[in-house]
Amino acid sequence: MTSFQEMWAELLPVGRSASSGGYRRFAWNTADAECRAWFEQQARSRGLTYELDRNGNQWAWLGDPRGQGAIVTGSHLDSVPDGGAFDGPLGVVSSFAALDELRSRDAELTKPLAIVNFGDEEGARFGVACIGSRLTAGVLGRDQAYELRDADGVRLPDAMEKAGYDPTAIGADDDRLSRIGAFVELHVEQGRYLTEEHPVGVASAIWPHGRWRFDFHGEANHAGTTRIEDRRDPMLTYANTVLSARKKAKLAGALATFGKVAVEPNGTNAIASLIRGWLDSRAADEATLERVVEEIRQAAYERGERDGVRVELTRESYTPVVDFDGPLRDRLAKRLGNVPVLPTGAGHDAGILASAIPTAMLFVRNPSGVSHSPAEYAEEADCLAGVAALADVLEDLACQ
Amino acid sequence: MTSFQEMWAELLPVGRSASSGGYRRFAWNTADAECRAWFEQQARSRGLTYELDRNGNQWAWLGDPRGQGAIVTGSHLDSVPDGGAFDGPLGVVSSFAALDELRSRDAELTKPLAIVNFGDEEGARFGVACIGSRLTAGVLGRDQAYELRDADGVRLPDAMEKAGYDPTAIGADDDRLSRIGAFVELHVEQGRYLTEEHPVGVASAIWPHGRWRFDFHGEANHAGTTRIEDRRDPMLTYANTVLSARKKAKLAGALATFGKVAVEPNGTNAIASLIRGWLDSRAADEATLERVVEEIRQAAYERGERDGVRVELTRESYTPVVDFDGPLRDRLAKRLGNVPVLPTGAGHDAGILASAIPTAMLFVRNPSGVSHSPAEYAEEADCLAGVAALADVLEDLACQ
Repeated sequence: MTSFQEMWAELLPVGRSASSGGYRRFAWNTADAECRAWFEQQARSRGLTYELDRNGNQWAWLGDPRGQGAIVTGSHLDSVPDGGAFDGPLGVVSSFAALDELRSRDAELTKPLAIVNFGDEEGARFGVACIGSRLTAGVLGRDQAYELRDADGVRLPDAMEKAGYDPTAIGADDDRLSRIGAFVELHVEQGRYLTEEHPVGVASAIWPHGRWRFDFHGEANHAGTTRIEDRRDPMLTYANTVLSARKKAKLAGALATFGKVAVEPNGTNAIASLIRGWLDSRAADEATLERVVEEIRQAAYERGERDGVRVELTRESYTPVVDFDGPLRDRLAKRLGNVPVLPTGAGHDAGILASAIPTAMLFVRNPSGVSHSPAEYAEEADCLAGVAALADVLEDLACQ
Repeated sequence: MTSFQEMWAELLPVGRSASSGGYRRFAWNTADAECRAWFEQQARSRGLTYELDRNGNQWAWLGDPRGQGAIVTGSHLDSVPDGGAFDGPLGVVSSFAALDELRSRDAELTKPLAIVNFGDEEGARFGVACIGSRLTAGVLGRDQAYELRDADGVRLPDAMEKAGYDPTAIGADDDRLSRIGAFVELHVEQGRYLTEEHPVGVASAIWPHGRWRFDFHGEANHAGTTRIEDRRDPMLTYANTVLSARKKAKLAGALATFGKVAVEPNGTNAIASLIRGWLDSRAADEATLERVVEEIRQAAYERGERDGVRVELTRESYTPVVDFDGPLRDRLAKRLGNVPVLPTGAGHDAGILASAIPTAMLFVRNPSGVSHSPAEYAEEADCLAGVAALADVLEDLACQ
């Protein structure tokens, strides 16, 4: 049995880029495989029943995996490109540490307890977040999943197969979900709402959020010879849309970010022919989110007219508001001594599962407020407070 | 002896991508080898003396290759990635057709006449334009050339060797240049200055131009959870700089283009940590160019302060203004009946050689104004007018 600190130290070097200091644990790549091997080893070394489900998610069971009303905790081990060490792994490591804590308390479980590592939560490779939980919940269909491709054109099932997993059975797993009584995910906070007095909080809701792709179609031309009046330069339309998005979001109290761009042909002396820009937008409610995106769309189209650039908009993903289970949320907050209850703008596997089963989340304080970056951070004392809180919550739920 | 149309039809399919319709004739690749074989065959079928110089440029001589005061015409056969059919090949094909025309006129040459195909004019493979003429003129040194690598890490001399050319002797070729009396390059126009009444024009100068890299350093963070006031998003600074560049250039009658961008980490739900944007800028004179770039720099720095983004500027390349030989230019324009004399923003082998020998250029009308793209175009009648003009000019220079 390894301590929280030992587990943390084991995972720390896996998939870490020496140049950026960030993590590159992407679905089914080598670093991901190492993380998975680590999970299985943690399960087996504790005498837990290890299981890989039809969608490639990993499970470690204390008690009968076929029993009813299971209490499940866990998170994910993959990362965004050059992400931090905490987003995901903190939840998984804390789960094993909390289980150890329950055993040391000699807690008498009346229900099965499981720890899960959901596959491909960040969506860094195939462009869709929470693939493991979405498949399980039937929110992402088997056929859709089979069509997903990574940047090199590799299809999701082929990537799974190459990593040694059989993709033929992927899809909704109602039977599994029907046996789960509650899912609790512990996660590092990704903003700066929690203060020093409160290292742990409980989630109220996840903001509705989505991803929209803007395609700006211009005309490739020579940057050194084409007169300004003859140009149809999509870079201008893109740039104007980036600035509009910030303005519209700020006015509405929402968030709108362009963090990913692809340019064709992307040559220094060539006016671009096509620019793809991905908009990530989120707001406290769905009506506000829709309004902000519509305003950005309109600004892009208007500027496109001026630049001779055709703008196409595609909604690539959308997640409605998630209100976590009220009674479960209140029970957790009360058990932990009325800790803060706060919303988040980030999507999580817990958000996906909330439509199917009672789901809750715990947040651990992040003093930097930084997330999806190597600067993401949590104090060890706060992490241990998180483990204790998770143990308390699991004991309350699984021993009742 | 093949006609202009026949030669054009022979070259048309070589190195053309079926998917983009553009050309991928890069230095020393298979398509380039096919073009070179075609050049040699054209030379030999006309009984010209074929020669490959120390830098891999091809020459076809009518008259003594060792004679003095040679009149040289030609251009290049390589392309930018997915470039058009005319940029380069029009000059080479027109040279052979003009030579045929001189023979049909029974012109009595008093000087050697040569057609040249300069290697690697576009710089698509090794990132430096006009490698063949730069080496010959001693503007690019042998040691520098040996260090050049393509995107796959292949060194220039190894690429030459693999294509069957001995790279040991590459370097300045003063002896060759000393025997040239004048070089005239015919080229498709890359803008839309020439009108229907004037299918052919003469070059006055090449605008000074350069390439500057802007590095915008922000802070990676989660797009869904980071409050607007906690963000240091370099995408905003980049976008504002793109729009500033267009404004400043337009006001100054100059050109400024951002056509290439690199984003880190380039994730949809991540605020970028670093954006690199490459500025291509050109103007009629060096003072204007410097002023425009300085204004863009200042706009970038000011917006960077506001966004919490640090901006770094690096000049990656710079080419001063090239004024083509005045007497030669005037002689050509007069011989052709006072055709338009116009500057260009694009670099050419003629621009490189202009520092060493009297050099001139002819432009053939491009009704689309499009260049470096499959849409690049010239009417057949205009091309034939270009051949006739080139023949007139060569007759004037070589038979005097």
